[in-house]
Amino acid sequence: MNNPDCIFCKIAKGQIPSTKVYEDANFVAFLDIMPANKGHILIIPKKHYITLDHMPPDLTRGLMDVELKMAKAMVNALRPDGYNCLQNNHIAAGQLVPHAHVHIIPRYNGDKVTIDWGHESYEGTEIEELAKKIIDKYNEENKK
Amino acid sequence: MNNPDCIFCKIAKGQIPSTKVYEDANFVAFLDIMPANKGHILIIPKKHYITLDHMPPDLTRGLMDVELKMAKAMVNALRPDGYNCLQNNHIAAGQLVPHAHVHIIPRYNGDKVTIDWGHESYEGTEIEELAKKIIDKYNEENKK
Repeated sequence: MNNPDCIFCKIAKGQIPSTKVYEDANFVAFLDIMPANKGHILIIPKKHYITLDHMPPDLTRGLMDVELKMAKAMVNALRPDGYNCLQNNHIAAGQLVPHAHVHIIPRYNGDKVTIDWGHESYEGTEIEELAKKIIDKYNEENKK
Repeated sequence: MNNPDCIFCKIAKGQIPSTKVYEDANFVAFLDIMPANKGHILIIPKKHYITLDHMPPDLTRGLMDVELKMAKAMVNALRPDGYNCLQNNHIAAGQLVPHAHVHIIPRYNGDKVTIDWGHESYEGTEIEELAKKIIDKYNEENKK
């Protein structure tokens, strides 16, 4: 299923041009035209899913296969000092296009990419209580 | 294979305590004690691999399975406004522990997490030339 208003669906269908570095039946990878650093790759499923958690597990495994291959190819081609694999879900997380995608960002010492956070801290038994909430939801979902 | 000096190897082996939210034969997921936001999950392979590109494809598929399950459980437990799945490789990319790991970070509108970059731009045919370098390396690796 595709969303006719989605720029990534249009790229997947070739209706908007892109500089592709990989394509198979389920995925397209292409260079971000406004890269964090040159060689910044975006990987998208051809089908329209808004966020990662909407994708079926077989497709997310395939996404990881492409991510691993593209990370290796980018590292071998560019020899950066490092790289980030980043997948943002919803506007609050910095997702600009509401079609699930993975960023592979080559990194260089002293570059202008900022990935940073202050640290929250847990009080008393808060961390165990929060873990239990997550475990309970995991168990609910995976006992279905 | 484990690295005796690695804090994540020690967590995987239970030699250092952690607040686990998931464990199977190959992976452990636990709450970051210095979270970007409360509920920040780290997923690690039990075996010591420095970066994603050192992991074998069957293990990265398994990592994605855990990532998807933990993302869903965290979303269902905390109902954040969004979340990031982030995997940093090497110090230049912000990797603090040299044992491959995935961050799942719940996000809230107006929180203090910064993931941002200025945009580089490509000149002339630079983007196509760079894509060709990546494609050539992909082809080299995948024709072996």
